[in-house]
Amino acid sequence: MYLRNSWYIASWSRDLADTPIGIRMLERPLVLFRDSAGEAVLLDGRCPHRFAPLSRGVVQGDTLMCPYHGLVFDRAGTCIHNPHGSGMIPPGAKLRRYPVVEKNGAIWAWMGEADAADPSQISDIDWLCSPDYACITGHIKVQANYQLVVDNLLDLTHAPFLHQDTVGGRPEDSIGARMTHDFRTDPDKTIHSDYCVDPMPRPTPQMRPLWGERPSIFRSNMTWRPACRLELDISLAEPGANEPSLHLPSLHYLVPETDRSTHYFFAMGRDVMIDDEEQTRIMAEFARRAFEDEDEPMIRAVQDLMGTSDLMSLRPAILETDKAAVQARRVLALLIRQEETVPA
Amino acid sequence: MYLRNSWYIASWSRDLADTPIGIRMLERPLVLFRDSAGEAVLLDGRCPHRFAPLSRGVVQGDTLMCPYHGLVFDRAGTCIHNPHGSGMIPPGAKLRRYPVVEKNGAIWAWMGEADAADPSQISDIDWLCSPDYACITGHIKVQANYQLVVDNLLDLTHAPFLHQDTVGGRPEDSIGARMTHDFRTDPDKTIHSDYCVDPMPRPTPQMRPLWGERPSIFRSNMTWRPACRLELDISLAEPGANEPSLHLPSLHYLVPETDRSTHYFFAMGRDVMIDDEEQTRIMAEFARRAFEDEDEPMIRAVQDLMGTSDLMSLRPAILETDKAAVQARRVLALLIRQEETVPA
Amino acid sequence: MYLRNSWYIASWSRDLADTPIGIRMLERPLVLFRDSAGEAVLLDGRCPHRFAPLSRGVVQGDTLMCPYHGLVFDRAGTCIHNPHGSGMIPPGAKLRRYPVVEKNGAIWAWMGEADAADPSQISDIDWLCSPDYACITGHIKVQANYQLVVDNLLDLTHAPFLHQDTVGGRPEDSIGARMTHDFRTDPDKTIHSDYCVDPMPRPTPQMRPLWGERPSIFRSNMTWRPACRLELDISLAEPGANEPSLHLPSLHYLVPETDRSTHYFFAMGRDVMIDDEEQTRIMAEFARRAFEDEDEPMIRAVQDLMGTSDLMSLRPAILETDKAAVQARRVLALLIRQEETVPA
Repeated sequence: MYLRNSWYIASWSRDLADTPIGIRMLERPLVLFRDSAGEAVLLDGRCPHRFAPLSRGVVQGDTLMCPYHGLVFDRAGTCIHNPHGSGMIPPGAKLRRYPVVEKNGAIWAWMGEADAADPSQISDIDWLCSPDYACITGHIKVQANYQLVVDNLLDLTHAPFLHQDTVGGRPEDSIGARMTHDFRTDPDKTIHSDYCVDPMPRPTPQMRPLWGERPSIFRSNMTWRPACRLELDISLAEPGANEPSLHLPSLHYLVPETDRSTHYFFAMGRDVMIDDEEQTRIMAEFARRAFEDEDEPMIRAVQDLMGTSDLMSLRPAILETDKAAVQARRVLALLIRQEETVPA
Repeated sequence: MYLRNSWYIASWSRDLADTPIGIRMLERPLVLFRDSAGEAVLLDGRCPHRFAPLSRGVVQGDTLMCPYHGLVFDRAGTCIHNPHGSGMIPPGAKLRRYPVVEKNGAIWAWMGEADAADPSQISDIDWLCSPDYACITGHIKVQANYQLVVDNLLDLTHAPFLHQDTVGGRPEDSIGARMTHDFRTDPDKTIHSDYCVDPMPRPTPQMRPLWGERPSIFRSNMTWRPACRLELDISLAEPGANEPSLHLPSLHYLVPETDRSTHYFFAMGRDVMIDDEEQTRIMAEFARRAFEDEDEPMIRAVQDLMGTSDLMSLRPAILETDKAAVQARRVLALLIRQEETVPA
Repeated sequence: MYLRNSWYIASWSRDLADTPIGIRMLERPLVLFRDSAGEAVLLDGRCPHRFAPLSRGVVQGDTLMCPYHGLVFDRAGTCIHNPHGSGMIPPGAKLRRYPVVEKNGAIWAWMGEADAADPSQISDIDWLCSPDYACITGHIKVQANYQLVVDNLLDLTHAPFLHQDTVGGRPEDSIGARMTHDFRTDPDKTIHSDYCVDPMPRPTPQMRPLWGERPSIFRSNMTWRPACRLELDISLAEPGANEPSLHLPSLHYLVPETDRSTHYFFAMGRDVMIDDEEQTRIMAEFARRAFEDEDEPMIRAVQDLMGTSDLMSLRPAILETDKAAVQARRVLALLIRQEETVPA
C-alpha cells in the first residue's frame, strides 16, 4: 500500500523548534525533534515501555524524555536512563531511528531500509531558501487516500472549476482549444503533466496582484516523483516573449498518514515584489483557501463516495487529461510490488 | 435488506428549486435537480470520471455540470460535454437515471427495475395541495434502521408516554379500556393500525388550540404501504356525532439512507383555521418537537441498545399492540425475498 | 475479557437520588434506581419489549415505568403492568436483576452468578463516611481498556512526570535512591504496590496547603483487589516519627464499560482541616485535574497508539517498577480463565 523506500517530508524546517513534533507517517507514529546541535532526529513515536506518545516528551540536550514514566532516550533511540529503582534498563528499550536529511528548508525522512537511503535522491529545491524569492509554507490534513491527492495535482484541469476565485480563474480563459498539454514519463519514472495556455486573456485571481489584468502566456509544469512529491512550476510570459516575467513555483509534498488520511505539505514562492509582506500574506491566503477550503472538501467527498473501494476497481471513465495520473498510479503500483518482493 | 421496487420520496416539491440536492437512498448517492421546464431529474450522484459529488454541481438549462472537472451531463445521465483537450467522451461516462414522478407536492423516486415503475401505485394524497387544508412539510434524519421507525409509527400507543406534551396527551385520557384498536392487513399487503378513544376527555396538547378542552371521539387511522409509506388520519368528532369536525391528516414517508439511518419526510394538514398562520407555525413546531426531540432520540437509543442485532433475533416480548408492526415486518421480509429471487 | 464474579461500583451513594441512572458495565446496559424505601435496585437497562433505555423511565414507588410504551417493572425485574389493550403480559417480559449492596457511601454491583455474590468481599472503607475525614467523590470516563488504568495506578512512579503540578511533585524530590518500593502479592491475590520516600524534601503541590513546605516521610500504599478495585493510602509523617501526622486515603474503583472505555470512580479524604470547605474544594480540583486532565489523556493516547493490540503481544520493555502491574495482569487473566471454565 505504501512505498517505504522513498523520501517523505516530515516537517518544514521552520516548524521544528524546541518542542518535539508527533507525526504519523505510513501508519507509524513517529517523534521528530532537534538535538543540541539543532540536527533533526526522527524516532519511533511510542515509548517501548508503556507505549506513551513521545511527542509529548521533553527534549533535554541530545535526549528525549518520555512524559509518562521519565525514561530517557538518546539520538540513536537507545534508552540511556531509567530514573526508578536501581535504574536497570531492559534490553528491549530501544526505538527505531529513521534516516533524516534537512535540506533547503525541509526535513526529509526515509521510512524504508536504512542502507537504501540515498540523500542524492532528495529534490534540490533552491528557490525555497533563495533571497530572490518570497515564500510561504504550510501543512494541512486531507481526509482521503494520498493517491486521490496525487490525482488531483496531476490533473490541473480541475482548477478553473474548483478554484475559479483563487488559483484557477474562469474556464473560458484557460481550457479547451486554448490549452495544450504534454504528459510524459521519464526513464527514471518521473512524470510530467504540463499545460500551456497561449494567450491567457487574463490571469487567475491569485496572480492578478502580481501581474495585473493583461494577457500572458501561461505555463504550468507539474513534476511527480514517486511516491508522492509534486513540484509545480507556474510562469507567466508577455505574449510573444520567450522568457517568463513572473515565476510562481510551488511544492506539494504528500505523506500518507493512514489509508484514509494524508499530510499535505505545501510551499509557494514568487520572484516579483519579494519585499512586499502584504503580497506574501495574500499569497498565503490564496494557497490556504485553494488547498484547505476548495481541494480538501472535494477530495474528502470523493473518498466518502468511493468508500473502501479502490479507484480502478470502480472502473472510472478515463479522459485524455487523466493520462499523467493514471501513469503515476501504474508506476507506483509497480514500485510497491517490487519493494514487497524484496521487503525493506 | 431493502425493497427496491417501491416508490420512495426523494424530496418535498417545495424544497427543490434551482440548486441540486444530494440524497443517499438505499445506500446509493443520488443527485436531484430540476431541468429548464421544472421537471425533476434523479441521477446517480457521483461523477463516473473521478466520483465527485454531483450535488455540488451547477444546473445549466437541462444539464448538470460536475463541480470537479466540468463534465456536463444531460437529463438522461449521458455525458454530453468534456471541456478539456479534444473533448473526447469515453463510452462509460454515463449516469443511471431513476424514474421520478412529481405529484401532489412530493417528488417520488423508483429505485428498482425501471420497467416495473408504475405511477398508479403512488399514493394519491389530495389534501397536501388542497385549498381546504393548511399544511406543513419537513424532513429529519433518524439515526436508526428504517424498520424501527416503522415500528414506532405502527404502534401509536407510545404517544401518551413519549409525546405527553405534544401529540400524545396524558395516558389516562386515551389508553387502556378507553381505547379500542383494530389491526388488519388488506389483500394488497396494506396494513392498518387504527385506534379509537370514545370519549377522550380532552384532546392532546397539539389539538387544543384547534379544539379547546372539551371531550371528543378521537380516531387515529394509520395505513402502512410497503416499503415504508405511512399515512395517518386523525380526526375528532363531537361525542355522539358520526362525522368528524376536525381532520388532521399526516404523512410519514421513510427512506432508508443506510442500514442505520433513515430519512423521515413528514407532512401534516388541518381543515380548520386554515388561514391562521400562527396556528400553522404552532402545528409545525409541535410536529418538529414530536419527531425530532422525542421520537428520534428514543429510536436512536433503541438502535444503540440493539447494536448490530436484528430485532427478532433478540426475541422481543410481543404485546397485542405490536400486531400491526410485526405483520409489516413479515410482509416486507417476504417482498424483499421475492424481489431477490427475481432481482431488479 | 472481564471478571464477572466480582464486586464493581455502580454509583457513589450520593449520586443516586430520585431519577434512574443508566450505566453500561462489562458491556451490559443497566439501570439503577432507588425504591420507595431508598434501596438501590439494579436491572437490565433495556426494556424486553422494544429495547428502550429504561434509564429514561420513571420511578413510581417500587416500580420503574418504561419511557417508550409504559410497561411497568417491579424491583425483581418482572413486568407487572401493560397499560394497553387487555393488559396481557407476555411471559418473556422480565429483566435480569443484579445483586446490589450499599455500604459506606458506595453502591456495589455483582455482575456474575447471583449465588456467588458474597457481600463480605466488599471493601470495608470506613473513612469515606467517617466524621473524622473530609471527603470528595467523583466519576470520569477513560477512553481506554480498564487494564491500562490499573497499570497506571499500580505504578505510581509516573506521578512526578505526569502530575508534577498536582499530585506528583518534582522527580528530584521523590524518585531514584530516595524511594524504596515494596511490591508483593498476598495469598488471596491482593497485590500491594508500596512506596516510601524518606525524607521527601517538600510535599507535592496537592499536599502543600495541608502540610506546608517542610520535609516529611512520604508513604504511598496501593492495594489492588481483583478485578479492579484500587485503594490508596498516602500518609506524611514528621522526619524521624513513626506515626503519620497527615492521612490522605483515596479510592480508585474502575468498571469496564466496553473493551475501550472505563468508568473511573474516585474518592479522596483527609484527616486534617476537615471543616475547611475551601480546602475540600481545592482537594476536589487537584483530583479532577490529576485524573481528568493528566491521566485520562495519557492513558487514552496509549490506547490509541496500541490500537487493537493486547499490551503483552506488543512485548513492552518491563521495568522493575512494573512488577505489581504485571502480576495483577497475570492474576486477573488466571481468574478470568477459571471463571470461563465454570461459567457464571
